[in-house]
Amino acid sequence: MKAIVLLNMGGPNNLEEVELFLRNMFNDKNILPIRNDLLRKFVAYMITQGRKKEARSNYEKLGGKSPLNFYTDRLIAKLQKRLPDVYVTKAMRYTPPFAKEAIKELMYHNVREVFLIPLYPHYSTTTTKSSLEDFYNMAKGVGYHARFHDIANFYENRLYNQAIIERIEEALDGEDTKEYELVFSAHSLPQKIIEKGDPYLQEVQEHVKILTSILEEKFSGYHLAFQSKLGPVKWLEPGLDEKLEELKGKKILVYPISFTLDNSETEFELHIEYAQIAQKIGVKKYKVARCPNESDRFVDALVDIYQRM
Amino acid sequence: MKAIVLLNMGGPNNLEEVELFLRNMFNDKNILPIRNDLLRKFVAYMITQGRKKEARSNYEKLGGKSPLNFYTDRLIAKLQKRLPDVYVTKAMRYTPPFAKEAIKELMYHNVREVFLIPLYPHYSTTTTKSSLEDFYNMAKGVGYHARFHDIANFYENRLYNQAIIERIEEALDGEDTKEYELVFSAHSLPQKIIEKGDPYLQEVQEHVKILTSILEEKFSGYHLAFQSKLGPVKWLEPGLDEKLEELKGKKILVYPISFTLDNSETEFELHIEYAQIAQKIGVKKYKVARCPNESDRFVDALVDIYQRM
Repeated sequence: MKAIVLLNMGGPNNLEEVELFLRNMFNDKNILPIRNDLLRKFVAYMITQGRKKEARSNYEKLGGKSPLNFYTDRLIAKLQKRLPDVYVTKAMRYTPPFAKEAIKELMYHNVREVFLIPLYPHYSTTTTKSSLEDFYNMAKGVGYHARFHDIANFYENRLYNQAIIERIEEALDGEDTKEYELVFSAHSLPQKIIEKGDPYLQEVQEHVKILTSILEEKFSGYHLAFQSKLGPVKWLEPGLDEKLEELKGKKILVYPISFTLDNSETEFELHIEYAQIAQKIGVKKYKVARCPNESDRFVDALVDIYQRM
Repeated sequence: MKAIVLLNMGGPNNLEEVELFLRNMFNDKNILPIRNDLLRKFVAYMITQGRKKEARSNYEKLGGKSPLNFYTDRLIAKLQKRLPDVYVTKAMRYTPPFAKEAIKELMYHNVREVFLIPLYPHYSTTTTKSSLEDFYNMAKGVGYHARFHDIANFYENRLYNQAIIERIEEALDGEDTKEYELVFSAHSLPQKIIEKGDPYLQEVQEHVKILTSILEEKFSGYHLAFQSKLGPVKWLEPGLDEKLEELKGKKILVYPISFTLDNSETEFELHIEYAQIAQKIGVKKYKVARCPNESDRFVDALVDIYQRM
């Protein structure tokens, strides 16, 4: 039997998992490249202790959990319907269900060929590599052998980009695109990671080019900005807040270009936090498009991606 | 001219310096041995962000600053009086005045021979090495040349141990030593650091032996416990809280064996936090001796240490 495993970072399924999520994330050596395991564990603990209260309160505003798992399950259900002969499941990096559980399912269903699709449209060591590495390590650890396929990215996929365009159109709800500045908001990364060879920035920039060439002159202007910066080191620029400042007085539509499924970075940061910033700054109108999530077109895209693997 | 420089970790001089103190401490590669400077800076920032609020509130309870600088200045004044021909100053590791300022003074006073005394009685990479390394790096950085002397520890110094005994007697205030358990409380360290060769634990244990042999059978019992553990990794044991639990129902005198000057670890943790724990546990009586600070006997000890260097 064949299987598709959708990989993603995960998100707390309940408020009790907020701490686990943070600890596992900061204990990921692709996130904090500290070689010494004990030291990294210590650092992850220390950072988590400081952040868990605020993170918990943020997830409370989202109903006590990350929306990521909900969208993932809906997406899997639709994909499973479209590919009845393929077993479709998921593995998360920082919260259950982890790769271990997915592999147990694959073994139980006697899956001999596995298609790993990390749901990050652009390759990054901090996401794609981390998820794939984790899955392969776990498979090796439990002695699971199969024919594995994986993909590095899918931002060039035509159907995926159609799914994005549909979300952008949906967000405008019939309003005139010409009145709007379209801001692609990508998750930021420390500049240093890019300098070390992570292709993320380049792929995001190429993706923006692809999307703007599809949209042609429809919008008043196209922009790329970076959200979710943390700490004092230099991250990718411009920050989304700077971009909003630059565009104040205008109508803005934000598309979260680095996410395929809505999660706290979109539903909390973009829909709540940056919305408040936009209002404070004096942005004329501020809208955020939804991620592809379980849209029919994104399901089409995943089927297409799978068939080309 | 000759100079004595007392080295110590420092402490916030005001509430605004709390963040600086934490950031510099967690950015010390002797504390968090992360080789990559940017990564360590990032981690230090992240940990500080999470801890600064609580730390600030703790220092508020101490009058808005660490007592360390106050005691250091009083100690220097007395030492200067005893050694009028020697220039006596200080350099702190995490808060002003830093080594740089001390070196400027030394250059200004044309000091050609420098006696560095880290005020940590036992050698540890996390304290002694960090302070000495920092001073020498700074001297090199600004091109300051002199004849340098330094010491690794002074827990065997007879006068220093007399200074400690006097503080222990002072704390009992005439009460019968026989009724008291004497608990030497040392700052804890991750077990892993000791395993890597840090002599701290061995020196603390030797120091306890020296002090108990001086005190003979005066106290009902002698104990060593470790305070200020942080995070999930294994630290030196037993923790002071476990020790208090073990000795509940008894009268306890705590002596902070790893500190020469009172600071937040003694005045906040021992005098306030552990006092509450002791009360909750049901310790019959809980007393904490003061550190040597600017006592005459500790001044004698420093003069003696200097003269033997």
